[in-house]
Amino acid sequence: MHLNYHRKYCGKIQAVIFDMTGTLIDFGAKANGQALQQLFNQYQIQLPPDTLLAVADLPDLAQLKYLFAIESIKNQWQQHQGSLPDEKQLEQLNIQLRTQQIVCASQQLSLPVDSKAVFQFIRKQGYKVGVCTHYCRDIASDLIPQLAEGGIKIDHWVSAADVSQPRPAPHLALTCAVALDILSVSACVKVDDSLKGIEEGLNAGMWTIGTAISGEYNNRSINEWNQLSNTERDKIRSEATLSLYRAGAHYVVDTISDIQSCLEDIEARLKRGERP
Amino acid sequence: MHLNYHRKYCGKIQAVIFDMTGTLIDFGAKANGQALQQLFNQYQIQLPPDTLLAVADLPDLAQLKYLFAIESIKNQWQQHQGSLPDEKQLEQLNIQLRTQQIVCASQQLSLPVDSKAVFQFIRKQGYKVGVCTHYCRDIASDLIPQLAEGGIKIDHWVSAADVSQPRPAPHLALTCAVALDILSVSACVKVDDSLKGIEEGLNAGMWTIGTAISGEYNNRSINEWNQLSNTERDKIRSEATLSLYRAGAHYVVDTISDIQSCLEDIEARLKRGERP
Amino acid sequence: MHLNYHRKYCGKIQAVIFDMTGTLIDFGAKANGQALQQLFNQYQIQLPPDTLLAVADLPDLAQLKYLFAIESIKNQWQQHQGSLPDEKQLEQLNIQLRTQQIVCASQQLSLPVDSKAVFQFIRKQGYKVGVCTHYCRDIASDLIPQLAEGGIKIDHWVSAADVSQPRPAPHLALTCAVALDILSVSACVKVDDSLKGIEEGLNAGMWTIGTAISGEYNNRSINEWNQLSNTERDKIRSEATLSLYRAGAHYVVDTISDIQSCLEDIEARLKRGERP
Amino acid sequence: MHLNYHRKYCGKIQAVIFDMTGTLIDFGAKANGQALQQLFNQYQIQLPPDTLLAVADLPDLAQLKYLFAIESIKNQWQQHQGSLPDEKQLEQLNIQLRTQQIVCASQQLSLPVDSKAVFQFIRKQGYKVGVCTHYCRDIASDLIPQLAEGGIKIDHWVSAADVSQPRPAPHLALTCAVALDILSVSACVKVDDSLKGIEEGLNAGMWTIGTAISGEYNNRSINEWNQLSNTERDKIRSEATLSLYRAGAHYVVDTISDIQSCLEDIEARLKRGERP
Amino acid sequence: MHLNYHRKYCGKIQAVIFDMTGTLIDFGAKANGQALQQLFNQYQIQLPPDTLLAVADLPDLAQLKYLFAIESIKNQWQQHQGSLPDEKQLEQLNIQLRTQQIVCASQQLSLPVDSKAVFQFIRKQGYKVGVCTHYCRDIASDLIPQLAEGGIKIDHWVSAADVSQPRPAPHLALTCAVALDILSVSACVKVDDSLKGIEEGLNAGMWTIGTAISGEYNNRSINEWNQLSNTERDKIRSEATLSLYRAGAHYVVDTISDIQSCLEDIEARLKRGERP
Amino acid sequence: MHLNYHRKYCGKIQAVIFDMTGTLIDFGAKANGQALQQLFNQYQIQLPPDTLLAVADLPDLAQLKYLFAIESIKNQWQQHQGSLPDEKQLEQLNIQLRTQQIVCASQQLSLPVDSKAVFQFIRKQGYKVGVCTHYCRDIASDLIPQLAEGGIKIDHWVSAADVSQPRPAPHLALTCAVALDILSVSACVKVDDSLKGIEEGLNAGMWTIGTAISGEYNNRSINEWNQLSNTERDKIRSEATLSLYRAGAHYVVDTISDIQSCLEDIEARLKRGERP
Repeated sequence: MHLNYHRKYCGKIQAVIFDMTGTLIDFGAKANGQALQQLFNQYQIQLPPDTLLAVADLPDLAQLKYLFAIESIKNQWQQHQGSLPDEKQLEQLNIQLRTQQIVCASQQLSLPVDSKAVFQFIRKQGYKVGVCTHYCRDIASDLIPQLAEGGIKIDHWVSAADVSQPRPAPHLALTCAVALDILSVSACVKVDDSLKGIEEGLNAGMWTIGTAISGEYNNRSINEWNQLSNTERDKIRSEATLSLYRAGAHYVVDTISDIQSCLEDIEARLKRGERP
Repeated sequence: MHLNYHRKYCGKIQAVIFDMTGTLIDFGAKANGQALQQLFNQYQIQLPPDTLLAVADLPDLAQLKYLFAIESIKNQWQQHQGSLPDEKQLEQLNIQLRTQQIVCASQQLSLPVDSKAVFQFIRKQGYKVGVCTHYCRDIASDLIPQLAEGGIKIDHWVSAADVSQPRPAPHLALTCAVALDILSVSACVKVDDSLKGIEEGLNAGMWTIGTAISGEYNNRSINEWNQLSNTERDKIRSEATLSLYRAGAHYVVDTISDIQSCLEDIEARLKRGERP
Repeated sequence: MHLNYHRKYCGKIQAVIFDMTGTLIDFGAKANGQALQQLFNQYQIQLPPDTLLAVADLPDLAQLKYLFAIESIKNQWQQHQGSLPDEKQLEQLNIQLRTQQIVCASQQLSLPVDSKAVFQFIRKQGYKVGVCTHYCRDIASDLIPQLAEGGIKIDHWVSAADVSQPRPAPHLALTCAVALDILSVSACVKVDDSLKGIEEGLNAGMWTIGTAISGEYNNRSINEWNQLSNTERDKIRSEATLSLYRAGAHYVVDTISDIQSCLEDIEARLKRGERP
Repeated sequence: MHLNYHRKYCGKIQAVIFDMTGTLIDFGAKANGQALQQLFNQYQIQLPPDTLLAVADLPDLAQLKYLFAIESIKNQWQQHQGSLPDEKQLEQLNIQLRTQQIVCASQQLSLPVDSKAVFQFIRKQGYKVGVCTHYCRDIASDLIPQLAEGGIKIDHWVSAADVSQPRPAPHLALTCAVALDILSVSACVKVDDSLKGIEEGLNAGMWTIGTAISGEYNNRSINEWNQLSNTERDKIRSEATLSLYRAGAHYVVDTISDIQSCLEDIEARLKRGERP
Repeated sequence: MHLNYHRKYCGKIQAVIFDMTGTLIDFGAKANGQALQQLFNQYQIQLPPDTLLAVADLPDLAQLKYLFAIESIKNQWQQHQGSLPDEKQLEQLNIQLRTQQIVCASQQLSLPVDSKAVFQFIRKQGYKVGVCTHYCRDIASDLIPQLAEGGIKIDHWVSAADVSQPRPAPHLALTCAVALDILSVSACVKVDDSLKGIEEGLNAGMWTIGTAISGEYNNRSINEWNQLSNTERDKIRSEATLSLYRAGAHYVVDTISDIQSCLEDIEARLKRGERP
Repeated sequence: MHLNYHRKYCGKIQAVIFDMTGTLIDFGAKANGQALQQLFNQYQIQLPPDTLLAVADLPDLAQLKYLFAIESIKNQWQQHQGSLPDEKQLEQLNIQLRTQQIVCASQQLSLPVDSKAVFQFIRKQGYKVGVCTHYCRDIASDLIPQLAEGGIKIDHWVSAADVSQPRPAPHLALTCAVALDILSVSACVKVDDSLKGIEEGLNAGMWTIGTAISGEYNNRSINEWNQLSNTERDKIRSEATLSLYRAGAHYVVDTISDIQSCLEDIEARLKRGERP
């Protein structure tokens, strides 16, 4: 055969898939950590901050198992409770954790300023909206309707509990895209505050937008952020932005309120035949 | 931000995902058509060949519904049977169809010559093997073990009945890739005999290899093929090859027996940072 | 339409099209100038060297008209001959010029060393061989058989007299390619010693190879060249090579004896989907 | 040499080369088939529609020879006329065919709606206009003045009878480009309704625009087209568009009335250094 | 490692680095040649024009040494002065040359028409301004303040005397860029009238703009240029422009007055991720 | 102008420029920190490890000033010494620091295993060798001869004290390249263990190779490294490798002993016309 042919998707964006914690809700990505912290505090155990980040991508029961595999936590627990929890007790703890997660997440539900305008733009363009979350299905189904009340309609969401591998594997993003009936992975945009979430999007063959101020890197509530000096903010912004770009994010913005111009640029690039 | 970063997957192939009918088994992609033909023959109805091709991507019940929506078939049926089948009768017909499909498919199970060498290569490289099929789960789970007996071990298979959209939507390929735990869609290769299957692979962000001689375009059993003159073969090969290349296939070969050099070339291109 | 398709020729080279003077024969590209010089010497007129280069691309009658438009030549002619030649006398002069050109060209017919090996390679690969020349059809049809006797078989040749525009317009190369029945301009290679000939090939959408030592830039016979010191040769080679590369030549070599590795590299690049 | 140089044409479009039948005139590309049909009808022979398409690219005498090589036509002819036509009778038939072609083509001369605006744009830009046709020189020279009367001035046209190979070989397009004195093949745009014509343009190194509604694929007169439902039209449009894109067309539009935006986009891409 | 990352500078231009003679001042690039000419005239020696061009890139003492290595100059000098100058006398001649250079350069100081608007644009954009000159430090430090008086503020300048290699080595441009504290070589633009200066910029990894009318190729004062016919000007412009493009210049303009649109285009290309 | 020309360097590598600490010598990049630590220990002050990393790119006096600007260090000093050092005392401390640096660096001089083979390869290829160091000129000139004794000949070295901006500005790399008389920045390779050093190379338009095991990230002596388990080593290697790739390194290896295959690959890419 003396000819080759190269096909490229050059249509419109079909779906925007948001990470939940730190991106869509929970400005400082603190709710899960707070819930774990409060749960273990009841047992006189203080969890170290970097451990809280380490479990952030796991479904809830896996979080507990991870923590009980850490020597220092194991020792403290045994010291206070005598023996480590068996499977049944773990289930009990997990139920407590979920209750705590709903409380904490509901307190952090408020969206970044002006994000409603972005969702109006997305609707007007006809893009579908997907959400990926590490929360279990119970909690997510509790939170999603609260978003809808606030005007943010989600077409489909998937939970880390639905898939066999946590991020940066592309499982959540791809499962969500299939459920949204997209035609091509190149027609999807993943929006995420974490490096692993950006990698998840890239592994899924999607465009990616990182949020540098809301989310895991900043790890501050909107109030804490507002109290910083401009110098402190610039330092955080530039470090978080650099990290996300280095992970391969196509765009990095402060919060989801700023993604409209990125989506417009992606449309222009798709039309020129560029790929994610 | 004055720098941008572009990340590319440059690792090894992780999975090869095969279409079943016409690619992996059933050299002429004739079993499904034969099954439908034989079913309708029992009711004195002759199905036109192009109609058989048109339903090839649909799950079985959808095939029957599609056929009963065609005026000429509707009329013949009513003429012979009085009234069109209701839901319950359709279910009955579907059960008959499945029985017929298993019979026909089992008769066409033999793999293309020398494909075992290819599967040994695939295993040695550590690639996972996936299969996408338009057969319902019952039939597929009947056929897969027969392949295993012949030395072809499948790591995961998905049925058109598992997803909401038929090819060329990427649903089957992506669902299979997630189940195979691949790290990146760029690490997957879709092998298919049909234009829609090649498009499915491209839409999923994967590399694609078309088979020009086995499959839907040729639509001849291995015996029928062997009886053709070289001139006839060359005509079929060059037309089928051109069609598959024009659909965007990265490579077109005669049958799966010829894909090893393609897989090696994909490895070299991934290493150079090329993408599907 | 949400997809675009890009087709590229990736087959083999189909034709190699050689410039004649300075490339294929006449190592120093001196024959035409010598013929003009000798013709005008008969009328006591000395032609300046840069004028000889300026007319090199024109068909013969056009050369004479060009020269008689130059003030100093006009004056000298009038001084010696009384009045300028009319159309009929021009025709006479042109006949004399052609006779002189055949004499001079036949004296410079010898090919660069080892070029026979190159033509054997070309034949073995099945490439067609074309020639473009500024000589009129009479002269060319006198020279081509002499080449054939030396083992260099030409499939088709075109003369500058056949087309409406001289180089760098692509007319000669395209007319030759059509006559050679090539499938794609990307499958053709133009070999030329002059900047204008390289541009002709590029304008025709072809691959180009420049010869730096044989031809117009060096403007020395093989004997004159052999008598130069290495330093002098290196200076000429590097200046000629740079000029040809800057004009856009894909490859620059010393003489046609060196083009085999270029042709092999072009084959490799075509296979990778590269274009001229 | 430690530097390489890559030259690209980045000037303006210099010529737009139109296919005649189905593109410039004869909306349904039906005239040639009608002429053949009517000729053979006089001898009680009905020609099958796909045979009519198969001969569409051949010069007229070659069309007749092609048809008389088909078994069924041969048999019918012998049945009605005794023996097959000899060379002289073929000539006679050919003369009859040409008369019929002029009649049929003149009936289909009307240009697509609003194409005059396009030709005004082309003139204003200074692009030259070429035409390639499968008609013999007699017929074409009869039709071209009729176009001129309608305001469409053609700078040069070539007939399939002028070249040794039919499309998809680039012969017609290249011969036309040379006659139009273009500087570079990259400065030419081929507009065609057929896959083979698009391939001809690509093989010639030119930009290509396909027309999906006028021409061979649709094969309906403007009146027949206007009587279709929107659904029927959309189906035809999307299939024809996909076929033309897959053949490698850079742009696909409905009819030549829509090419202005394509020409403007090509200008922008040439300026950015892109190539066909 | 199964991923690769590619980083590109996509920020703003940070510095524009101008050649001095022929680009920024001295429209015809004649001052140095005049100074040499006048110096040697005092000793009854006429310097050939191409020799003047050959020394144009050398620091002053090196110019004298170069000239005294030429046989014909050596002979004339010995004929008039008895013996060749020793080191001490060369120093004396060099002092005379510098005096002459200041005189000649000051007479050619006037900038191309409207260049002030360009420098206002540059300042407004915040680009730094560098200058590379072949003049020795004494002369340059005499001329730079005169430019400042005319409103052209230079942030840093380097002299050919500061570096070990003349152009086309990248030494001057890189030394200047380091002194201007630029962040990336891709953020720099070199503006130069000579082929060697364009190559210097390319070797330094910078964007390059050539000036075709002011400078070395034209070698005419602004007055001489203004007296040419349009035909003469077009010939010079097109030859100079072609030479500069062929050397690899990204843009070629008439004089520095025309570079604003180039700088704007470079900004757009940097933003798109293009590199020099 | 209707043509553009793009020039690319495609010659050989001309220079390899090594960072000193952590790359060429001092496997764990610990000498500078040890020297500072030991100096401040004499004054009863313990320096925190991350502070030691923060000053690693500064020239020595700047290091001291940086430390005395930190509140906690300031307080401890005042507590023990009464008042902060004045300029003269700082000079004294700096002299002490340099003495300490020479002691510590000399103890860490041993090169990574097998690096001699690499330097033999580099010499054989004719590449020049440059070194960039944050040490002051006194120390560097003490260490370089010791390397030479070990068979590592350095053609030129530059000290952070020679330039106005620390890494990631390209100042050191560009200054070194100019001193090495390279022809093009694309012909240079920067080898460095730190993110900032990789960025320095990229900003200078050079190829970059990161060392993941020797150097700043690992921060362990060769003995400490050898005592780690494979699991611990793999974790460090993969994290350091990812960081360096994300910063844009073209290649990441364990130590300089592994760079030969990278250099060979860069040669192949330069030849294909690729750029850093």
